Amino acid sequence: MAETRYKVVFQPSGRQGWAREGQSLLEVARELGVYIESICGGHQTCGQCRVDVAEGHFPAYGITSRPHHLSPPDAGERACAERCALKPGQRLACSARVYGDVVIVVPEESRLKRQVIRKAATERTFRIQPTVRPVYVEVPSPRLEESGGEWERVQGELRSRFALAHVTPDPLLLRALPEALRAGRRAITLTLRSDKEAVAVRPGYHDDVYGMAIDVGTTTLAGHLVHLRTGEILQTVSAMNPQIPFGEDIMSRISYVMQQPEGRERLHTLILDGLNALIREATTAAGITPQDVVEVVLVGNTVMHHLFLGLDPTPLGSAPFTLVVQDALDVKARDFGLDIAAGGYVHVLPCIAGHVGADNVAVLLAEAPHRVEGEIHLVVDVGTNGEILLGNRERVLAASSPTGPAFEGAQIRHGMRAATGAIERVRVDPRTLEVRFKVIGEERWSDVWPQDALDAFDVRARSPRHRHRPRVVKARGICGSGIIEAVAELWRVGAIDDSGRFVPGLAEETERFVPMGTKGAFILAWPHESATGEPIVIHSDDIRAVQLAKAALYAGAKLLMQRLGIERVDRVKLAGGFGSYIDPVHALMLGLIPDTPPERVRAVGNAAGDGALMALLDGEVREEARRLARWVEYVETALESSFQEEFVAAIPLPHARDPFPHVEAFLAEAEPWRSRRRARVSRRGRPRRRRSRSLPTEDDAQGDA
Amino acid sequence: MAETRYKVVFQPSGRQGWAREGQSLLEVARELGVYIESICGGHQTCGQCRVDVAEGHFPAYGITSRPHHLSPPDAGERACAERCALKPGQRLACSARVYGDVVIVVPEESRLKRQVIRKAATERTFRIQPTVRPVYVEVPSPRLEESGGEWERVQGELRSRFALAHVTPDPLLLRALPEALRAGRRAITLTLRSDKEAVAVRPGYHDDVYGMAIDVGTTTLAGHLVHLRTGEILQTVSAMNPQIPFGEDIMSRISYVMQQPEGRERLHTLILDGLNALIREATTAAGITPQDVVEVVLVGNTVMHHLFLGLDPTPLGSAPFTLVVQDALDVKARDFGLDIAAGGYVHVLPCIAGHVGADNVAVLLAEAPHRVEGEIHLVVDVGTNGEILLGNRERVLAASSPTGPAFEGAQIRHGMRAATGAIERVRVDPRTLEVRFKVIGEERWSDVWPQDALDAFDVRARSPRHRHRPRVVKARGICGSGIIEAVAELWRVGAIDDSGRFVPGLAEETERFVPMGTKGAFILAWPHESATGEPIVIHSDDIRAVQLAKAALYAGAKLLMQRLGIERVDRVKLAGGFGSYIDPVHALMLGLIPDTPPERVRAVGNAAGDGALMALLDGEVREEARRLARWVEYVETALESSFQEEFVAAIPLPHARDPFPHVEAFLAEAEPWRSRRRARVSRRGRPRRRRSRSLPTEDDAQGDA
Repeated sequence: MAETRYKVVFQPSGRQGWAREGQSLLEVARELGVYIESICGGHQTCGQCRVDVAEGHFPAYGITSRPHHLSPPDAGERACAERCALKPGQRLACSARVYGDVVIVVPEESRLKRQVIRKAATERTFRIQPTVRPVYVEVPSPRLEESGGEWERVQGELRSRFALAHVTPDPLLLRALPEALRAGRRAITLTLRSDKEAVAVRPGYHDDVYGMAIDVGTTTLAGHLVHLRTGEILQTVSAMNPQIPFGEDIMSRISYVMQQPEGRERLHTLILDGLNALIREATTAAGITPQDVVEVVLVGNTVMHHLFLGLDPTPLGSAPFTLVVQDALDVKARDFGLDIAAGGYVHVLPCIAGHVGADNVAVLLAEAPHRVEGEIHLVVDVGTNGEILLGNRERVLAASSPTGPAFEGAQIRHGMRAATGAIERVRVDPRTLEVRFKVIGEERWSDVWPQDALDAFDVRARSPRHRHRPRVVKARGICGSGIIEAVAELWRVGAIDDSGRFVPGLAEETERFVPMGTKGAFILAWPHESATGEPIVIHSDDIRAVQLAKAALYAGAKLLMQRLGIERVDRVKLAGGFGSYIDPVHALMLGLIPDTPPERVRAVGNAAGDGALMALLDGEVREEARRLARWVEYVETALESSFQEEFVAAIPLPHARDPFPHVEAFLAEAEPWRSRRRARVSRRGRPRRRRSRSLPTEDDAQGDA
Repeated sequence: MAETRYKVVFQPSGRQGWAREGQSLLEVARELGVYIESICGGHQTCGQCRVDVAEGHFPAYGITSRPHHLSPPDAGERACAERCALKPGQRLACSARVYGDVVIVVPEESRLKRQVIRKAATERTFRIQPTVRPVYVEVPSPRLEESGGEWERVQGELRSRFALAHVTPDPLLLRALPEALRAGRRAITLTLRSDKEAVAVRPGYHDDVYGMAIDVGTTTLAGHLVHLRTGEILQTVSAMNPQIPFGEDIMSRISYVMQQPEGRERLHTLILDGLNALIREATTAAGITPQDVVEVVLVGNTVMHHLFLGLDPTPLGSAPFTLVVQDALDVKARDFGLDIAAGGYVHVLPCIAGHVGADNVAVLLAEAPHRVEGEIHLVVDVGTNGEILLGNRERVLAASSPTGPAFEGAQIRHGMRAATGAIERVRVDPRTLEVRFKVIGEERWSDVWPQDALDAFDVRARSPRHRHRPRVVKARGICGSGIIEAVAELWRVGAIDDSGRFVPGLAEETERFVPMGTKGAFILAWPHESATGEPIVIHSDDIRAVQLAKAALYAGAKLLMQRLGIERVDRVKLAGGFGSYIDPVHALMLGLIPDTPPERVRAVGNAAGDGALMALLDGEVREEARRLARWVEYVETALESSFQEEFVAAIPLPHARDPFPHVEAFLAEAEPWRSRRRARVSRRGRPRRRRSRSLPTEDDAQGDA
């Protein structure tokens, strides 16, 4: 007897083939390699496999498609359609059976491999195709005449309903399986990884599955907690790296490991404690538990990478800067004491070379200079260890720069990380030198704060009746973007000269300047504007720290430009995970990046974190990352003889040699007060300072070496 | 330019193909799928790839083979040949390059997949083809211009020298890699598992790699420590299962787990402690460390299997006797706290069904009834939980029987495990009722022990000058085989009747019998023959325990015979991991197995342990085990209504109903003393006892239920 077969076409992929009479659309789709989402495997529970039927004659395929060419919805499908809010005419692919030619349209939300545009930390396109997915299984009860165990019964269902023949259980999952079967009355949801391993089990039906993308910075840990099926970011959290007391930058962490017998183990434990606390914070805020997280993607510079993995970072401290491992790693979270789902994995993105780490790869994924045609893009990720990428699809160069923690608020007198109360924006009036600022958590600029709110929270007038609710969020310190703007503004108005020193006579102009010997401090927030009751200042040393940090980044970028043989870049992307976006104009005034038209400079937020997020949401991105990590050309700045020279030349504002014509336009507003103040420097004659303006002393240069 | 190629034939496989001029024999072999062992990958270090060159004309292949068709040995090969004791004319396949047609003979010891006959615990054939193998790698020093990490350099060597492109490192191995490279001056030996994962790293060259096969019994843990390349058994160790205080048999262990909230975790921890102690004992005795062990194969009954894996065994306590998992598992030892190499694995053989465990599969592997043509084989593995297999290549039935721990020396007044000082053989003189016995660790039977040695070690005469060295190993207790022989001998000489009770008037015949009310005890070893100074006896209760144990085994075997529709078996194999081999005649007299000509009954030692050993030495055996576990038909004795009846009928010696004609011949020697003693039973008239002889009371039957 000949078998009756019908033609089935799937849109938008256009894949087509023949279905046996009575075969379900889901089976046909699987045979044709069309990926339709299904969590419940045909139990009419999840409603994920919804499809539309196109109606009419399709000459291209030579068929006429009609809704009644499919079996009518049965009671189960009708119930599911109502519960899951299917649109009129939509069918469940698992239920609808083929009894005639049909053209099926798979809507975006039903595709297993989705191309969904998601607004994440910044406005980027994220593809959602995670390595983990939930599958719902109703497991037959054991019967005496059957010899297999509970897992074999689960596997039988995976084979028959999901066409998955080779799923292995995480051995620890087996411990939870009988209890889950009992609690779920033999219905469970497994979380599968790469359709190969079952990493988690829950009783009953669930369509949620969670992951975290974490950027392990030298100073800051920043993470996104994500719903892996929808791509929704549930929480974004950050915390200080608990290793900071053992060294402010990566070189001092390496020194600690070299000098202390238990140093490596101690830093490893600290970073794990920090990561576990971060995951707890995010999951608690989202109303779930750390054990609900089944996948973590980690990025970080090479030293953080090694310390997380428990690897010895000391060879990274001197040439030839040897990594223990460069490639990406998939490791069981429990092998490192990371407290997530017992069977969960950590994917660590690959490094590029000795000083060019997984964070750089993540920035590359997020900003994708390797996809740019023609134009040369410069991507600068500002952190304690700065990552720099330069190039386009022909060639991308990568380097890292020992920026130091100034931009993350460390080694700054009133520095703090980007959290509520941090000054993130600063403007200085060129005439009066009055300051207005914006604080994280407070929408209004400080100059329009209501006076009564200020009085009420003046520490000198604090009384019980005012304690209940602050009417304004006062300043607690300065975060990275605030520090950049404060220094750039002071320079713009002529309060500091190109060498970064306060100009003479400031104290006579404003009470905000407090001279301290040859140095001084500039008050940004008065005590009544401060949550601590103490003024918040920028000190001469802070300005120096910012100069050294920006010089390191600039020199790194310059070096890559020299390698590529270019004098100008076409576009600059300023990334950084420390709170507010960096203002391009202030970055240019500071000389943090090479001179570029400001409209071609864009702040892109936490690119490393976003790159980690992309790798979390899409398994294919991980493969791309591995390819890119090998393809990128890296430059070891520490060994370039010209780096030191470029670094020294970049310490003045905006630069000792390189012209910054685009900055000029932004100085006009501050004239003539700016010129008047700067003139005092030459008038009073300060030869030592003038010398350092064109050529800094060795001390300056070595301060960060 | 045409490439010059020569014909190369490998013997004994007969594989042939073309070699490019100058290609090494090792490369040619790899391309042709001829597996030649090489640890050093062509560094002329290991000498493992030695081959012979056949000389002459070979019409079958149409070539003439000459030694000079290969490149002459270079200095490195000559040095290696001397160091590794190559035979004259032997070449290293890694060094010898092809410059003409050759026929190469690969000796047995150079084959990567070997078929070597090994004498192990018993005389069995073991195939040596382990899942783990050592590879020696000389890792290039890192250079600044290279971006890969140390692992990538290792991987490069694996690719170029071993044609292994996809080896992943155990993440914890990476922690040890830099130190190994330093200590080995960049030469290391990796241990690869299935050529896919590097599970261990050592500095320098090593060709040894170790594994352990462990039978986790309810009462006894028994393990072999093995050199996995040679198959040599370095140590055989055993210990009591530390779970014993929480239940003598599997049902009482299950009860403990059901009644105690922390019971499962406690038994899991205990078994791990026991296994770790066993591994430590074996490795210390062999002069290595537990961390040198990279692979462990575990077998055990289903309850031991579940408790080791931390799985809930309570569903195994009642129908439908549900396993959590039936299939074999490969788990990282560290996931279960097993203290071997950090990256090492445990392979757990599959179970068959609820009460038919991985130990049964191991017995199946070792005794292979499924390979028998025609004849029906019965395999009985005597332990606290007895495993029974019956059939041939057509069909094999499997069952387990709740034997109880009597045969392992537990629940026996002077029982002990098979260790130094255990009475393993017993003979009773039919005329005098005098006893002679043999003790483990002492070659002489007790009746020829020198008198002065006995005096010297008599506790009453112990003095310092005699303490130095015992001249005879005295008895400390009775192990399984001793118990079987003691009971069988007492029955043979008529000291106990068929119901297992001491016959009347024994005390008048011999001082060895001590009446105790309706019961009594028979002294096997006098105080001066005992290491403790106390007599070692067989008590009425011990005889009862042995009867119940043997009845359970017999009933299980009988049930399988009924299922197969047979009345007699062709051969019996008596397995058991408790010391000395069971004597077939005594087993028959006891009625432990169905009546069979004694020459067709063979003791085969620890079959479960040997099966585990086979799976340890040969990865393919593991696949066979998985197939067999699904193929075997299992019988759940606990649910067979006839089991209870068969059990009750099997309690008398040798059996209440079934004839044992082959035993009769062995009773002749004991006549007429035997008849005379047995006659006293009916003379004095003991109706209650006679009743129990043909039909035991309910109490008897339920004693073991």
